Amino acid sequence: MSEFRKDLLNQKWTIVASGRKTRPSDFKGEDESRKICSFCEGNEKLTPPETFAFRDATTGPDVPGWQVRVVPNKYPALDPSEILLQSKVDFYEVMSGFGAHEVIIEGPNHDISLSNISIDQLEKILKTYILRYQHWSGNPHLKYILIIKNQGCFAGASLEHSHSQLFATPLIPAKVLEELAFSEEYYKKYKSCLYCDVIEREKSEQVRVVLENECFIAFCPYASRFPFEIYLLPKRHLSLFEDISKREESQLALIMKELFTRLNYALDNPPYNYFIHVSPANTTPPFYHWHIEIIPRLSSTMGGFEWGTGIFINSVKPEDAACVLRDVKLDQ
Amino acid sequence: MSEFRKDLLNQKWTIVASGRKTRPSDFKGEDESRKICSFCEGNEKLTPPETFAFRDATTGPDVPGWQVRVVPNKYPALDPSEILLQSKVDFYEVMSGFGAHEVIIEGPNHDISLSNISIDQLEKILKTYILRYQHWSGNPHLKYILIIKNQGCFAGASLEHSHSQLFATPLIPAKVLEELAFSEEYYKKYKSCLYCDVIEREKSEQVRVVLENECFIAFCPYASRFPFEIYLLPKRHLSLFEDISKREESQLALIMKELFTRLNYALDNPPYNYFIHVSPANTTPPFYHWHIEIIPRLSSTMGGFEWGTGIFINSVKPEDAACVLRDVKLDQ
Repeated sequence: MSEFRKDLLNQKWTIVASGRKTRPSDFKGEDESRKICSFCEGNEKLTPPETFAFRDATTGPDVPGWQVRVVPNKYPALDPSEILLQSKVDFYEVMSGFGAHEVIIEGPNHDISLSNISIDQLEKILKTYILRYQHWSGNPHLKYILIIKNQGCFAGASLEHSHSQLFATPLIPAKVLEELAFSEEYYKKYKSCLYCDVIEREKSEQVRVVLENECFIAFCPYASRFPFEIYLLPKRHLSLFEDISKREESQLALIMKELFTRLNYALDNPPYNYFIHVSPANTTPPFYHWHIEIIPRLSSTMGGFEWGTGIFINSVKPEDAACVLRDVKLDQ
Repeated sequence: MSEFRKDLLNQKWTIVASGRKTRPSDFKGEDESRKICSFCEGNEKLTPPETFAFRDATTGPDVPGWQVRVVPNKYPALDPSEILLQSKVDFYEVMSGFGAHEVIIEGPNHDISLSNISIDQLEKILKTYILRYQHWSGNPHLKYILIIKNQGCFAGASLEHSHSQLFATPLIPAKVLEELAFSEEYYKKYKSCLYCDVIEREKSEQVRVVLENECFIAFCPYASRFPFEIYLLPKRHLSLFEDISKREESQLALIMKELFTRLNYALDNPPYNYFIHVSPANTTPPFYHWHIEIIPRLSSTMGGFEWGTGIFINSVKPEDAACVLRDVKLDQ
């Protein structure tokens, strides 16, 4: 059982999950290679029952024969069976850990990565994203749906087998509220979408663009917080991921595959995080533009300065990072 | 040469430092043990000239005979010789990397830590903090002075020899602005200091308190973002660290030594970050209360969920963490 707790000094919510880890030895890394992978085909019984799968028509749930498989997280940070209660304030503020936390297993084989799977498989993953957005946005108590990916243990992945995660929360996260506020302010002032204008600027400057195709553009942001940070945006102004067209779906699969291939070549298969920012569930504010932020984890990104200020120190100019990624020679 | 760049989408400043690292191999860890430590006594010529030291009266600068030594960072994120320019906006906003970045070497021997040095030595370190705050607050262009410590390479320390760092910035960092805003709002509403009230609450509940003495209290915050996170606060309402009394100085040394000893026993010498939050340079707003935040780095703290939401998932209840730290049996 987990709960949302709000810090009074910085007004931020934390999810305090059930006290599974309290002994120091619990924080020592485990030798994962010696364990059986619960995400591999054939080990379906090791996960909670699947909530969705792309699978062969002749197969039932929780057996082999799937291409993408969605299961509740075995150790969920948030749980849809919790009762949603109004937050209680007794000096400190607390709220039950109601929400959802799913794992999207990106393929049946252990050694897949976003750069070595087929475009067809990548499209199935993206289609799964869309379907899970649609599923959870049907719950009126869930205000926000976030899909993320942690790749590599240094990036926070506890299992090696390639997977994404979906979180649905009863509140709109602070980072999203900030982006909504800034983009609304810009929209009111300039009668224009901030994200569309940034895309235009990057296209005209060309120094930070890594890659683009008909429907998407990827660039290293002007004030990149991390070496080789990348923003991936749809060129069409759209606030919800689930509203992308069939054409955009396949264009996104294409640009993602090339982008992660370039990152892996240039940086030797780096650990990374990405997350997809969309507008709050069932809303389509005219000023918001969904996007993916990709953070390669090349070094310890947070020190006392970053925690204390919120300012990051980045030793690689985004112009240089974009150049390195553009210059990667891909196999023909 | 570095510069402050502001991101348009999240309105956050980043310091983009000179492009020292661009090749992938630059991000591979170096075997530090094979190098000569430039912070050790006898190697004073390997650092930039010292800006302050507690040293034997018979010795001159940059030679052995010191107890605490302050030098400019060899690879400064910010530089006082940069010209401070008004920020320029040409779609994106940029500002020169004016500021200060110093290293406070906490003792002449390589193997010191905050838990194995004498109280006398710890007092000299804290006295050095005070003197450097006073030094940099004399520069009217510097709006904020932050002292931090990164302990261990996993916590972002690039050198093993125990040291703190001081940053002085021409702007007030976002995290500090937030705390100022929240505490001012509370002060206006309740005619009381938010931090003083949190201390009272923690003292009355007692479940999250780790340690206290006459002048200081250390507790695991109610909404701890990280396992074993600790807030260390002076009981006396005071907004600037440099205004602590002689008595508080020695009480702070005592509580810090015990606190880090307990952390090291309980968590096997964990890497950690701490930072000192004070009010902006030369200001003493009645609602702000300086404090130290200590973040043990027990696991990869940031994944896609944390980056995307600003919400942390903490698997250790602060009540349990405080209990573990209180229960440590110290050597007699």
